[in-house]
Amino acid sequence: MKKIEHIGIAVKDLDAGNALFEKLLGKKHYKTEEVASEKVITSFFKNGPNKIELLGATAPDSPIAKFLEKRGEGIHHIAFEVEDIEAEMERLREEGFRLLNEKPKKGADNKLVCFVHPKTAGGVLVELCQTIKSEA
Amino acid sequence: MKKIEHIGIAVKDLDAGNALFEKLLGKKHYKTEEVASEKVITSFFKNGPNKIELLGATAPDSPIAKFLEKRGEGIHHIAFEVEDIEAEMERLREEGFRLLNEKPKKGADNKLVCFVHPKTAGGVLVELCQTIKSEA
Repeated sequence: MKKIEHIGIAVKDLDAGNALFEKLLGKKHYKTEEVASEKVITSFFKNGPNKIELLGATAPDSPIAKFLEKRGEGIHHIAFEVEDIEAEMERLREEGFRLLNEKPKKGADNKLVCFVHPKTAGGVLVELCQTIKSEA
Repeated sequence: MKKIEHIGIAVKDLDAGNALFEKLLGKKHYKTEEVASEKVITSFFKNGPNKIELLGATAPDSPIAKFLEKRGEGIHHIAFEVEDIEAEMERLREEGFRLLNEKPKKGADNKLVCFVHPKTAGGVLVELCQTIKSEA
């Protein structure tokens, strides 16, 4: 795991979240991206080598809607950047972590991602992410 | 705000937390430090430019004991590294954020720190931290 790629923060309203985190971080968000398969809309802020990803729900059955209902607004997950997601998934499986997807899937921001079940990771929803390299 | 300095994660038992996060991160923690004034014991892992800080309670009235009771184990706060903590505190006050301490206080890992109330920061407990430079 090379670094914290981003921290995902669940917000009720993406525009209000953008306005608030612009004030907090002292800079504007630089992109918005919908991940239709996950029923989320995301907004990204750069913070040195790291990013903050705001997450809004696009449907009542979105995982973010469920999180907001249960926990309210706040930190949703930590994403670690990895070089080789399949190797890291295999390593974690062998260490006894439960993965939420069998194969890497396409996430926001041109990444292949895999989530680790928080019950096996100290109550933390952990995301692994690997940047998708464009083929030459 | 220069980067995510660390993510604080509340754990019930520091030894068990160390063992779990060693497996997750694929490396050993490099130090343990008690912050008596906060009634916490901390353990640090490096992760590229960032750190993971495990937080255990050292007394039943520790803020970490209260957090664990209410939320269970999991992410407790995000700490951002700042160059000038007093200037950043002043900027945030003017933007309407509520700070949990009036003046910077001494935290773990040779830092001056200040916390921002999660009610004013989208449900996120935000820590500002500035490295204490030793005087020449």
